[in-house]
Amino acid sequence: MNIHPIDVILHKRDGLTLTDDEIRALVRAIVERTPDRQLVTDAQIAALLMAIFLRGLDPRELATLTSAMRFSGDTFDAAPLHTFTIDKHSTGGVGDKTSLLIAPILAAAGLAHPTTSGVPGICVPMISGRSLGHTGGTLDKLETIPGFNTQLNLQQLADTLRKCGAALIGQTPRIVPADRTLYALRDHTGTVESPFLITASIMSKKLAESLNALVLDVKVGSGAFMPTYEKSKFLAELMVRTGESAGTRTAALLTSMDEPLGRFSGNWIEVWECVDIMQNKRHPMSADLIELSNILSGWMLHLAGHASNPEEGAKLSDQILQSGEAYKAWLRIIEAQGGDISVFDAPATRHKPSATRVLKASRSGYLASMDCKQVGWAVQRLGAGRAKPGDPVSAQAGIESHAKLGNRIEQGQQLFTLFSEDAALLNEPEQMLLDTIVIADAPPTVAPLIRETITAASLGK
Amino acid sequence: MNIHPIDVILHKRDGLTLTDDEIRALVRAIVERTPDRQLVTDAQIAALLMAIFLRGLDPRELATLTSAMRFSGDTFDAAPLHTFTIDKHSTGGVGDKTSLLIAPILAAAGLAHPTTSGVPGICVPMISGRSLGHTGGTLDKLETIPGFNTQLNLQQLADTLRKCGAALIGQTPRIVPADRTLYALRDHTGTVESPFLITASIMSKKLAESLNALVLDVKVGSGAFMPTYEKSKFLAELMVRTGESAGTRTAALLTSMDEPLGRFSGNWIEVWECVDIMQNKRHPMSADLIELSNILSGWMLHLAGHASNPEEGAKLSDQILQSGEAYKAWLRIIEAQGGDISVFDAPATRHKPSATRVLKASRSGYLASMDCKQVGWAVQRLGAGRAKPGDPVSAQAGIESHAKLGNRIEQGQQLFTLFSEDAALLNEPEQMLLDTIVIADAPPTVAPLIRETITAASLGK
Repeated sequence: MNIHPIDVILHKRDGLTLTDDEIRALVRAIVERTPDRQLVTDAQIAALLMAIFLRGLDPRELATLTSAMRFSGDTFDAAPLHTFTIDKHSTGGVGDKTSLLIAPILAAAGLAHPTTSGVPGICVPMISGRSLGHTGGTLDKLETIPGFNTQLNLQQLADTLRKCGAALIGQTPRIVPADRTLYALRDHTGTVESPFLITASIMSKKLAESLNALVLDVKVGSGAFMPTYEKSKFLAELMVRTGESAGTRTAALLTSMDEPLGRFSGNWIEVWECVDIMQNKRHPMSADLIELSNILSGWMLHLAGHASNPEEGAKLSDQILQSGEAYKAWLRIIEAQGGDISVFDAPATRHKPSATRVLKASRSGYLASMDCKQVGWAVQRLGAGRAKPGDPVSAQAGIESHAKLGNRIEQGQQLFTLFSEDAALLNEPEQMLLDTIVIADAPPTVAPLIRETITAASLGK
Repeated sequence: MNIHPIDVILHKRDGLTLTDDEIRALVRAIVERTPDRQLVTDAQIAALLMAIFLRGLDPRELATLTSAMRFSGDTFDAAPLHTFTIDKHSTGGVGDKTSLLIAPILAAAGLAHPTTSGVPGICVPMISGRSLGHTGGTLDKLETIPGFNTQLNLQQLADTLRKCGAALIGQTPRIVPADRTLYALRDHTGTVESPFLITASIMSKKLAESLNALVLDVKVGSGAFMPTYEKSKFLAELMVRTGESAGTRTAALLTSMDEPLGRFSGNWIEVWECVDIMQNKRHPMSADLIELSNILSGWMLHLAGHASNPEEGAKLSDQILQSGEAYKAWLRIIEAQGGDISVFDAPATRHKPSATRVLKASRSGYLASMDCKQVGWAVQRLGAGRAKPGDPVSAQAGIESHAKLGNRIEQGQQLFTLFSEDAALLNEPEQMLLDTIVIADAPPTVAPLIRETITAASLGK
């Protein structure tokens, strides 16, 4: 390239604004380099990442970086479907399984309103990730379904959408290859937490799905990836601006992650919980999960033109759930991707952890607080998550929550049940949970599930 | 190491102060890593360098980094000599050949005052570098002397000092190996110009010579490496603080580099100029060179206890030059390192450039200004410097200055003579010089040679 990586580094280092050509040339060099032809070295990329971490990116730089990354490899072309494409992305949480409900809800809405050419009127090309750190991963949960194939190519994705209105797949190596290089380097050079780099990473992959609209679930609270409310909000604003600048209607909801969402946190047990909900067997502990899923789906239905406002959309979402249409769409998607749907007949019977431990309240009072990130790490240590990419995860491991923040607790009452495939793995997570759970005399103030909503309108665009 | 590189990066990234253990562990990892065992990766080092570039280092961090680098490989142990070791370092200039005068001046002073065990009372273990960019390199100049060997090992260095009071050698790969890794990475990640990283690089190598005292010539003006006076001064202060914190008496002089120093800029022609001076054949164009060399030597003689103040030291230095003792010491050093001293009998006859061009004044007036960095690049393009490390340099190429800033100039008067071994190499440098020389009607204000002196006392220590 005529633009030398050194100059791009120097400009960002010195606080200048990078030109579109500089950003595009650098992303091209990242993708086109080979071991023999180091158009840009790992060290140069790392230096630039640190300079971006400390200097930031202005809205145009961020939009250009995101776009250059988005088009650095294959992209999904939804145009031939002539449908409305929409997706949801979460910044990651504990027990956060809303994708497993939202995809079928939207698919059901799309199937109920096909286009004149017979394609579902809404399609959800949902590309998900794996568990890492204290957060769960949608792919790990889905892969506990026998036969279910998350590795579809782009043609198979289009076929599945045409047939089912949604597909639940994993990242392919050819989509946004620039992000794979950048993410691996960020991970080992201490430049992961930059809101600018996070936005470029997330949004390039989501926009590569060729979306008409996107709803973002940005977590706040003790289990959130970002350390403060303000930083989560700043990230949400960056992502909304970047999505809108790419022509994708984007809304971000700041939602509480102060305790695990729903009843179960793990892999198969999260599928089980969602199947129960779709089968209208609602467990009291699933109330927050159902509420959040309906609110997020409501926003999506609203953006897709199926509801006049998000509140109407949330009501419609709950109707679709209760009508059984979401469950039908779920079975259709799972079957289309090779999954054995007979396992949903009695999902509880497939949960056979070899080791179980019940954690009980040492005193009476109110469940006042916990460090939800620690709870997530406890789930990981039980075997449900991974210490590093590529590690296997346990289908059986995880925790069941028996109480929610603010609940009245009596001494000896069950708080959590821990599941593992190895009894030796129970002790440390048990202690982690004991250390972080606070039972107080007075009822705590519990944050509302939805803290704030960021849209183009709220940003004054 | 127990300290993980990622944590060191994160701490510096977030503006925390690194602990001594963190800095030492990181330098150890840099030196001890192998291709199979990447205790720290290039990308991690690059990210840390950029974080240091943008966050800086406090005095303790800088002292610890410098010390850890200093002891990252072999060091010269001067203790067995029982002498006073001292060196001079320059940040680099055009026609800057003071080392070729200072080493013999100090050696002569040391030889004249041996210790009780017969070792010269002052020793100058001068480890020099090569030309890079627009600045010349002492080693390239010395290597135009037939037979002269700059690659002495540490034992040979000690032997030469014992015999001659000075040695003029190149860096060995085993001295400060950490700097070789860091410098190569800085060079290609845009992190060269950090005053903190420059200080650690320069001072670790100088302190590895086991110095009792060090005089720094920090250039300011259009030919200086640092872009502003303030940045040069800040660098000088960092280096003085770092030297003093290591127990080495350190003084820094901020000196003007607004035009080439002395009569010649090149390789052999700079040796010739110095030999003329030591043979008491003083050319008018060498006046600034002689003055600066005496002032720097004067500081060194003062710090070594041979003069009650730097001014007395400068007078003593000039006496040593004029007495012929410096020339005797020069011949002794060159001979000890294998050089053919017969070439100094008629140095002018050894200058046989195949191509010469005289640049004359296009108008009358006063020589008002030039971009001295451009002049340095012109010298490099003539063949005297190198475009990249490892390139060969020409012994014959360079320029002769016929006028100094502030001189009255008549139209048609000679300003520069250009020398090259290839006539095709003359045109571009000629144009570069024409473009940068300004002749004005009024006499300019010429900056004094010595702008400011930084010592422990001036820093208020």
